[in-house]
Amino acid sequence: MDTKELHVISTGRQPFADLAAAMRDIHRFVSCFHLREKTKTAAELMAAIELLQAAGMPAERIVVNDRADVAAAAGASGVHLAYHSLSVSAVKRLFPQLRVGKSVHSEEEAVQAEAEGADYVMYGHIFPTSSKPGLPARGIEALRLLAARVRIPVVAIGGIKPPDAGAVLNAGAAGVAVMSGILEADDPGRAAAAYYDALYREV
Amino acid sequence: MDTKELHVISTGRQPFADLAAAMRDIHRFVSCFHLREKTKTAAELMAAIELLQAAGMPAERIVVNDRADVAAAAGASGVHLAYHSLSVSAVKRLFPQLRVGKSVHSEEEAVQAEAEGADYVMYGHIFPTSSKPGLPARGIEALRLLAARVRIPVVAIGGIKPPDAGAVLNAGAAGVAVMSGILEADDPGRAAAAYYDALYREV
Repeated sequence: MDTKELHVISTGRQPFADLAAAMRDIHRFVSCFHLREKTKTAAELMAAIELLQAAGMPAERIVVNDRADVAAAAGASGVHLAYHSLSVSAVKRLFPQLRVGKSVHSEEEAVQAEAEGADYVMYGHIFPTSSKPGLPARGIEALRLLAARVRIPVVAIGGIKPPDAGAVLNAGAAGVAVMSGILEADDPGRAAAAYYDALYREV
Repeated sequence: MDTKELHVISTGRQPFADLAAAMRDIHRFVSCFHLREKTKTAAELMAAIELLQAAGMPAERIVVNDRADVAAAAGASGVHLAYHSLSVSAVKRLFPQLRVGKSVHSEEEAVQAEAEGADYVMYGHIFPTSSKPGLPARGIEALRLLAARVRIPVVAIGGIKPPDAGAVLNAGAAGVAVMSGILEADDPGRAAAAYYDALYREV
């Protein structure tokens, strides 16, 4: 696999101006930036996407969480769906131009997402993480088993630090997704660079 | 104007099973049923639309609030937009098959919505209503002035009782929208019938 994917996901806790400021430092390292802001309105998301683009993140690398209509209206590259979202097949039918990702939590969900036309799945959490307290981490071996069941890229998420990137890629992941590890780092640009370097050097 | 429109809007407070039960009694009187459930997920809205249809409300009369993607995926007839939603023009471009309505609060907003391609506007609140406490009602005369500025239908909302229907239609409205006046009535079917009769008899 030549290209490794680094997905960065917004925390839902940062003002859009702060997100935009981070974009300037991280955009060159990021394959997909996920705007995941569950309490924001469609109009607010559209405004945020404009801010992100003005700060250097190209629309082709912006993914909107859940709202396929916003993704299409903004010219974003894709939409990322969760269990509470529209189905992959419905979104693919409405918006063939969008790259559609799906969060999955089992091999069965991954296989189904692929069958419905998902372009990638996101699987986790791989390691213990403060954003999923009390839920057991799935671990590298579960990632390996899941990745072997689908042909589409599997993006690993959850408590992944740069030194873990090699193990995650070796287990069959196409890349990693990071939330607070980059956006809440003291220096988001440096953190993004560390992930990027780890993805490209450690396999 | 031959057809008068009776829009019924969900309250966001009723279980979907209760909404579906009301559908059986009101569907024959209703031009548009608005599913306006701001805290519900896309998957929940899809399930609700199935319930509503199973209870007799045809998809061609179901309108989804804000979520154009859900409306299109469910085969609903339209989407109703608010100030915090995607723009009318963006939704019309993405979904030419949807009837697009817009809530407006001034003549300028109504004129703009029409220019963007809205199929109708909703204007209010016309009379004092408990759902907009503290905000002054706009009154019949403001409705008349606004309706004279646009060619698309103006649906009046806010504290409208069946005996008010004639005055509202005479002011230029194409119909009325009702929320708790029907769905929280002791007998929703009887309440819907009273509005229907008032719309068709009192002009």
